[in-house]
This record gives sequence, C-alpha cells and structure tokens, in this order.
Amino acid sequence: MTDSSLSPLAPAGFPAIPDLDGVRFFTGNTGLRYSGRDDLMIAELAAGSAVAGVFTRSKTRSAPVDWCRNALAGGSARAIVVNSGNANAFTGKAGEVAVKETAAATAAAFGCAPSEVFIASTGTIGVPLDASKITGLLPQAKTATAASWEAAARAILTTDTFAKGATATINIDGVPVTISGFAKGSGMIAPDMATTLGFVFTDANLPSDVLQDLLREGADKSFNSITVDSDTSTSDTLLLFATRTAGHKAVKKASDKRLKDFRKALNTVLIDLAQQVIKDGEGASKFVAITVTGAASAKAARKIGMAIANSPLVKTAIAGEDANWGRIVMAVGKSGEKADRDKLVVSIGGIAVAAEGAVVPGYDETPVAKHFQGRYIDIAVDVGVGKGKATVWTCDLTHQYIVINADYRT
Amino acid sequence: MTDSSLSPLAPAGFPAIPDLDGVRFFTGNTGLRYSGRDDLMIAELAAGSAVAGVFTRSKTRSAPVDWCRNALAGGSARAIVVNSGNANAFTGKAGEVAVKETAAATAAAFGCAPSEVFIASTGTIGVPLDASKITGLLPQAKTATAASWEAAARAILTTDTFAKGATATINIDGVPVTISGFAKGSGMIAPDMATTLGFVFTDANLPSDVLQDLLREGADKSFNSITVDSDTSTSDTLLLFATRTAGHKAVKKASDKRLKDFRKALNTVLIDLAQQVIKDGEGASKFVAITVTGAASAKAARKIGMAIANSPLVKTAIAGEDANWGRIVMAVGKSGEKADRDKLVVSIGGIAVAAEGAVVPGYDETPVAKHFQGRYIDIAVDVGVGKGKATVWTCDLTHQYIVINADYRT
Repeated sequence: MTDSSLSPLAPAGFPAIPDLDGVRFFTGNTGLRYSGRDDLMIAELAAGSAVAGVFTRSKTRSAPVDWCRNALAGGSARAIVVNSGNANAFTGKAGEVAVKETAAATAAAFGCAPSEVFIASTGTIGVPLDASKITGLLPQAKTATAASWEAAARAILTTDTFAKGATATINIDGVPVTISGFAKGSGMIAPDMATTLGFVFTDANLPSDVLQDLLREGADKSFNSITVDSDTSTSDTLLLFATRTAGHKAVKKASDKRLKDFRKALNTVLIDLAQQVIKDGEGASKFVAITVTGAASAKAARKIGMAIANSPLVKTAIAGEDANWGRIVMAVGKSGEKADRDKLVVSIGGIAVAAEGAVVPGYDETPVAKHFQGRYIDIAVDVGVGKGKATVWTCDLTHQYIVINADYRT
Repeated sequence: MTDSSLSPLAPAGFPAIPDLDGVRFFTGNTGLRYSGRDDLMIAELAAGSAVAGVFTRSKTRSAPVDWCRNALAGGSARAIVVNSGNANAFTGKAGEVAVKETAAATAAAFGCAPSEVFIASTGTIGVPLDASKITGLLPQAKTATAASWEAAARAILTTDTFAKGATATINIDGVPVTISGFAKGSGMIAPDMATTLGFVFTDANLPSDVLQDLLREGADKSFNSITVDSDTSTSDTLLLFATRTAGHKAVKKASDKRLKDFRKALNTVLIDLAQQVIKDGEGASKFVAITVTGAASAKAARKIGMAIANSPLVKTAIAGEDANWGRIVMAVGKSGEKADRDKLVVSIGGIAVAAEGAVVPGYDETPVAKHFQGRYIDIAVDVGVGKGKATVWTCDLTHQYIVINADYRT
C-alpha cells in the first residue's frame, strides 16, 4: 500500500474523473483491520438508478456475493457499501447476519429498500465481521462532504500498490454520457486480501437488463480475460450502475445501434481497469498480452490463452527473461482444447519463433531475447484449427509473489 | 543433479533392487547435452515380454510418445531406449524420423521388430535430436556388462536431485514375483527438463491386456494424483513390462483373484515412485498429502484435491508455514466440482479447523501452526455432498522453484 513498494508497471497517476450526476462517495475507517487509512467506501446513488453485476463462480462464495446476486433481481440500486480487510467469507450464518444488518441499516439511513443496497467485502477469509463497525459510520456517511473518486478507489484496496480508475465520455443520441469506475485487485483471483472488486458508474439512461447484457459481454473481454495466479476469489464482484440522469431517450435493448459508442467505451473502461489489476499483480515485473487465433471458438481461444497465462513455467520464464518458447507449446498442449501441433505458429514480440510443428528455419533468438527484457511482452499463438480468437493478459511469476504470499498473514 | 542441491525430502538412498530375470540394462553418454554423466538408458527384455503404457494427454505431445502409443498395439516389447537432455518434442517431421531411425537400428541390434522397441526422450523442447548419437551406442549396449538398476535410474534424470527406485516382491499362486521400477521427474508435469518418465518391470506371467488394466488403475492412484506445478509435459510416459519368466500359470484377466497381492504391490511401487517425484519437486521443501472425502465421485474428489494442490496461494502459504486455511476453502470453491460450503470440514495435521461453513468454535491455531513447521503436511477436506474420496500429493511453492525455472535454460 506504501509508495515504496509501488508496482513498476503502475500508471503515472490516478486519472482525472469528472463528477457524475447522481453518485456521491463517502470513505471512512471502520477499525476492522487497518489503521491510518480509510477502509470503508459508501456510495449513494440517485433514485431510479439501475444496476447489473457479475460475480465469482466459486462454490465457496462469500455472504456479500450471495446477497448481491439476490438483490440484483430487483435491478434497482441506491447505495453501495464496500469494506476492505475482512472478506466476510466462510463465516457461516454469522456472515449472512452481518450482511443483512448492514443492508437494513444502510436502507434505513438512505431511505430505500434493503434490496437496493449492494455490499462487497474483501480481505481475510474466515474471520467473523462485526457489522456495527460499518453501520456505525452511516450517520457520518449521510452528512459528510463528498469524497473524491480517488479516495473511494483507495478505500477498497488491500494488497494493491496503487488506486485503479478509468473514465470515458461519449455520446448517446448526441447527449454526452460518462462512464467512470474503479477496481481493486492484485491477483485477479486470489482469495486472501486480493479479491477483484470493480464498480463502474454511468449517467446513461439504461435499464438494468440492458446494463446486464452489456456488462456480461464486457466482463468476458476484460475481467474474465486476466489472471495473476489462477486462483479464484470467494468474493469477486463487478457491478455496473446507471443513474439514468443523462438527457437522452431511454434505450431498451443492448442491441440498439445508438449504444455502439457506449459499448465500445464501456469495454475500454473495463479493459483498462482489468489491465491495471494485472499491472498491480502480486510481484509483477512484466505485463504480458497473449493473443490466440485459429482456435475452434472464441471460448476455446480464451481457454488456450489462459492455459499459457496460468502456466507457472511460462510465467517464470518471462520473469527470468528466458525466451523459452517450448513452454508456450507445452501450455497450448495442456489446455485440452483442439490444436494442430503440426500447424502451430508461435510469435513473440511480433517475431515468428515456431511454425508447422517446429522452430522456424534459421531462428535467431537475439531479437526475441531483447523483447523479453522489456516491461511489455507480446505472445501470439495460432493453433491452426478454426477462426476463434481471444486476447488475455497476465503478469510474470517472480520471487516477490512468493514473498507476498508466503509471508502475508503473519 | 549434484548432491549439494539434494532435495531435503530425498530418501536415505536408492533401494536394493534384486536382479530381474529377462531384464538387462545398459547406460552410456550420447554427447547430446550432458557431459560427465550417462544420459542414455537401454533395456533389453527377454523374448515374449509384454508391455502396457499410459501417456501424457497433451495435444502437443512428442514424437516418442506418438511412437509408443502406436507400438503398444502389438503388446510385445524387447527393448527400451531412453535419453535425457533432449525431449525430441515439437521437432516436426525430423522428430518422427529420429524416432523411426532409433527404433529400426535398435530392432536390428536386438533382433526384434521395430514395434517391439519403446522410446522415451526428456529434456529441452524444440531442439532437433540427432538419432545417430543414440544408435551409435547400440553395439556397446549389446556387449557391455549389465548396468545396475541405480545406474539405469540415474541415466534418465534431468533436473532431478536424486535417483528414484522402488521394488516389491509378492506371490502369485505361491510363486514369488518381483515388481521393480524407476522414474524421473521434478515436476510431474513440467515441460522442460522435468517430464515424468516411469519404467516398471515384473517377471510375472501376465499378458499385455491384463498389464494395461492394472497400469491404468494404478496410474490414476499414483502418477495421475501428483502435481508440482500444474504444467503438463509433452512427454510424460509410464510403461509397465512383464518378462513373463516367473513359473506361475498365466493369468488372463485383471479381475483374477490371484492378482490381489500383485495389484496391491504394483500400486505401492507406483505410489512410491510418484511420491518420490513430488519429494524431488522443483524447489520443494515440504511434502503435502491432501485427502478429499464427501465428494460426488472419486473423480470429483481428485479434481478438488488437485485444485488445492495446484493453488499457488495454498502452496506459498505452506512454503511460508502460514496456516492460512482460508486459501484451502478458496481452492475447493474454484475446482468447479460440487461442494456444500455450509458443510465443509477442513482438518490440518488431524486437527479440525473449519466445519459447517465457518471456523470451529474456540479454534486454536498453535498446533496447526506447529504442524505447518514440519516437512510433512496433511490436509483433509470433506465437501459434504457424497461418498467420493481421493488422495493427491504435492509440494510447496518456494523461491527455489522460481530460481530453477526463471534461470534454467540460460
């Protein structure tokens, strides 16, 4: 969390995010775990705000995730409560009770239904959460001056080394609308203080079912296409809120052509946030983009890409700046997806390395080795069986990952 | 390979393995990669020997694996040729030619059909293999004094820090038969100089179809139940040979009751060898047994066990001696297999940690933390949905793994 350990892949700073009509942030310190920093973020949303969400597929998901999945059925949101330091995961019945208490108290404070309150928690698993530490700050949350986007983004961090924000402004029907959000995560997918949470807001006048379609599509291309260490959190939550305060006519279908620019901008914001999670990957020293083409389907391409991205041997080779492309071939093979070994093409940094089941004739490792010495690594693989393609992003596996995760809790 | 880097989990020494009637070893140096040690193992088998095999499921498997899969159809074996240092994987047509040349020359030397020659290669991927370096040693292999089991086991090693052997003697129909073998591997499953190869020999009078049934069953409980780093080799090969020289009456079915002790002994040998691979896992400092019960099926139990065993966060917690059981819960959740979060039971070193979806009341971490300080870690999980059970074995993920794999090829 300190700047001294800032990721070498961190962006220059938090972006300038304009105010968004109908969204107001509060941050505070609960005393649950951290001192000297805010660990609670509460957002109040204008009446009539719509919501969409995607969540972890874990079978041991947390109480807040269960809560949000149920609340989503109403499609309406008025408040968001997020704490960092305690995940309220694997906390049994007490965990459910803590979530209900938080929702009820927040609903009372903001004058809405409990099902309009969305809750996320990130931190240690298995430690009971005292909801009163959160609800005790509600009076303050109602009256305090609005906190900035950056403060809100900071309050939800755990092992992250920088706050992650993104914003875009485009038009719907000639009316400017803004999409802004923030995320935390330092493994996509890491269970202990490294869950991925993302909160994205827009003033576009979009109902919850349209938001849901757009979010599901965008999540597949962003948060579902990144991996730090292959581990899946009990708490991963990505929520998209629309205050609907922009002056354009309501859009009723995700397929509406008026959403062309919005969809693109939303995906850009989501990919930006997801890539920032990777750039803050635990111990990351290099950012790796892996593009797979020629797969049986887009889904198969993503699975092959993730097999490469999750391979400890590929990731350690990248950490060691060792252009060991044989490990990429291995990872393609282990994905279980269709691939034609004898048509396989592997390129690194735009340089052809292997083709037709063998190294390219006269292969010169020098430029590939040079590419591996950079911060940004590009790997492209064509598996020669179809037209499916996908890009996934990951980071390398370094000593620092072991340091962070072997010594974390103690 | 040097004793200075011997795994802390290494056994006291190579076991005393008795001569096996009908099996004769030769070892030599090909000059392909290593100097100062033997890197070629050739075994000559008595006429009438039967063979069974299981192989990597990689879609980018090596030319020798393709060869063995085809040769297995004949069910008969007279020679085995194994080199270390070059995997002959992803070597295109040239790789296939090298295997054919090796088989043809070996068949000519030993007076058998090429399909009775079994070939395995382990080492770097993507480097063309000069078969003449192997076949040039065939005259010597025919005339040299027989090499020992330990010498044979040593010649096939790559990043391994010790030679791995196991042996058992039991009776079939009152006639003593022996099962002995050796293996290499330092990731189960690691593509570059760390492939798993296993060769097991018996004098039992068993035809190839019986051997195949026994081996498939035994492999699931041993080599398919271990993982170092989740990566799958292009070259994994496990072969079981029977010289059929023991004096008992032939057994025609794997279900024959006379095989009860044999099956048990075979599984013991296979599990012993598989566990030695884990004990030599790259960078391993702790040996971890994970038993999963209460799963929907044995297969589901193994998948959940492997999700725990492959989790970088579980493995780093073990390396750091941090009794972070929340990560075990996370890994159960990500396996995708059915599990009842609210019935989940987790025990570490025989001590109950969590039950009914939460930490046990009055949980005292002290004895669990103490268990984590040992070399041998026991994790037991009951997922509360059925009767399926399985045990898998793994090692921790340490700095040394990164050192070995980030700096290996250079």
